[in-house]
Parts: sequence; C-alpha cells; structure tokens
Amino acid sequence: MPYITLSEKLPGITGLLDYRKDTAQPIRELTQILLRGPSTLTEGERELIATVVSNGNGCAFCTAAHAAIADMLLDQPLAEQVCTDIQSAQVSDKMKALLTIARAVQQNGRNVTPEMVATAKAAGATEMELHDTVLIAALFSLYNRYVDGLASVTPSDPAFYQRLGVILKNKGYLPSENRYAEL
Amino acid sequence: MPYITLSEKLPGITGLLDYRKDTAQPIRELTQILLRGPSTLTEGERELIATVVSNGNGCAFCTAAHAAIADMLLDQPLAEQVCTDIQSAQVSDKMKALLTIARAVQQNGRNVTPEMVATAKAAGATEMELHDTVLIAALFSLYNRYVDGLASVTPSDPAFYQRLGVILKNKGYLPSENRYAEL
Repeated sequence: MPYITLSEKLPGITGLLDYRKDTAQPIRELTQILLRGPSTLTEGERELIATVVSNGNGCAFCTAAHAAIADMLLDQPLAEQVCTDIQSAQVSDKMKALLTIARAVQQNGRNVTPEMVATAKAAGATEMELHDTVLIAALFSLYNRYVDGLASVTPSDPAFYQRLGVILKNKGYLPSENRYAEL
Repeated sequence: MPYITLSEKLPGITGLLDYRKDTAQPIRELTQILLRGPSTLTEGERELIATVVSNGNGCAFCTAAHAAIADMLLDQPLAEQVCTDIQSAQVSDKMKALLTIARAVQQNGRNVTPEMVATAKAAGATEMELHDTVLIAALFSLYNRYVDGLASVTPSDPAFYQRLGVILKNKGYLPSENRYAEL
C-alpha cells in the first residue's frame, strides 16, 4: 500500500509520474534524452545499465520493467546475465567495463576508481559514454528511491512488465496520449 | 582530477552541467521546481533535506554547497546540526520526521518504514510534503553520484561554497547569464 494516495490503475513509477506532473516532466525529458537520444551506446545497452542499477538497489519494479525492455531491444535475454555476473555476460568488453562503473555508482559515486575508468577507456569507451553511464546510473538511483521510498505498488505478474516494456519501447519516455491504455 | 574533460573554472556539479547542457536542462528544471517552486516547506527546509542526503552519501561538494545555502536561507547554522543528529537539531517535529525519511531514502528507498511515515503524518506532514521529501532525497542521490562518480573537483576553501551559496540563493537553479561570474 503506497504511503501517499496514488491511482490504483497505475502501479510503480507510472502512478508517481501521474501524481505530480510538473516534476514528472523534466524526469521524463532527462530519461528520454539519456535512454533514447542520439548516442554511440545502443538503446538496449543503455537499458542494461538501467537494469543493473535497479537490480543493485533491489528495486523489483524498475528491474523487471527495464529487463523486459532491454531484452526486447537486444533480442536476447541479457538482462538476467548482467544482473547475475557482469564479467561472464555475453556483452562486449566495453559494456562490461561500463556496467561495472554503473554498479559502483549505484552503491556510491565515490566507489568508481581510476582503474575502472582506465579499463573502460582501454576497451574503447569515450568520455561521453563514461559521462552517460554515470548519469544513467545516477538517474536510476533516483527512480529506484522514488518508487520504493513511497512504497508504490509492484505487480507480481511478469506479463505486466512485458506490456509496460512494449509501451516504453514503442513510445519512449515522454508523455503521450492514452499512454497506458494497454497496460 | 575528473575522469572526463571538464572546464577547470567550474568545479563540482557546475562543470558537469556545463559538459552536457541538454541533460543539464531537465536536471536544473526539476531542482528549481522542487527546491524553489511553491511548497508548504520553506526553501531553507528543502535545502536541509538536500544537505542531509548529500552528507549521508559522503558527497563533500554537495554537502558544503547546500549547507551554505540552507544556513543562509534559515538565518541560523542548522545544517551541521541536522547532519550530526536529526533528533536533537533545532527544527520542528515535522522536519525531524521528514529528514529521517530523507536519510532512509538516501540509503535505499526500501528503508522507509510505515512507522516513519506515520510519525511524519502525526507531526502534520501532508502527502505532498512526503512526496517532495522522497523526491528531493532521490534527486540528491542522483546529484551526489553524478558529482563523485566522475570525480569532479571539490574545492577545499569554505569561501567558495559561500560564494556558490549566494549565487544559488539569489539566482536559483535555472541557467542564467554570467551565472558563475562571481564564483
């Protein structure tokens, strides 16, 4: 039961973004730029970063939602692999290094080491990719706390996250008409 | 030394917001709404929430900056008090309850308990104040990770944070002309 009065039809983050739309707007814009805007990281790779951070924070809603989107975008079940063990996951060395940095940021920004950054740069990561990895990890540290700090509802049916994943894959993160009609 | 190439004239968060301005814009807007927009919490009270979270995350730059602004706005040195011990600080019972929730959110959203929320409501906190407390705590969990995760520069001179505090007190968080001229 949420700590504040949220729409019963909108679980997890969806009800929170509906509760205060003026704060939701810049959160949605930041997410759209970082996860869907021009980048040398694919949309699927960026969703993996969101998934690893959400998983590290133990946020069941965000983990299930972004794992569903990542797997859809990447056309293979990589989300569970990176949550279980980044080093043995079927992703590039650059992504392993960036996901390692994201996991450090999730714990505390000060946990990122010069060695982690050197490894990422040696694997071909650009400064913008480093920047975006840290900011995506920081953004999902916000989301996870927003969702869990107000005890929003976490559906238990995996099909819910598949439906949400399709909406986010097709419509992105900005507000849209009848956004959650198929939720 | 930062992990990416930032302007040497702009330490801490200021250089990061300058590095990628398209992502900076919604971060600035969200901060302006939450910390300076209409609210039943005073600007000083909201800066105390930002300070307690930044202190909990061990982010020296954000702690010093927001402690300086909070103390200016509240006209008394409360920032150090709430960082040291919320319960004995010279703030209202409602603020003690909200700062306790902010501190829990800083650690993990799931650390907020129904008892913490009941205490805040009994002390007069509204649902919007609860919402905003959680979202401010989540936002500074983002900021702290952004600042420390990229190893941005943390000035050691306390006078720097007084100057930054004056800028943020007078100009708020949105972009402005010659914003850091007096930094």
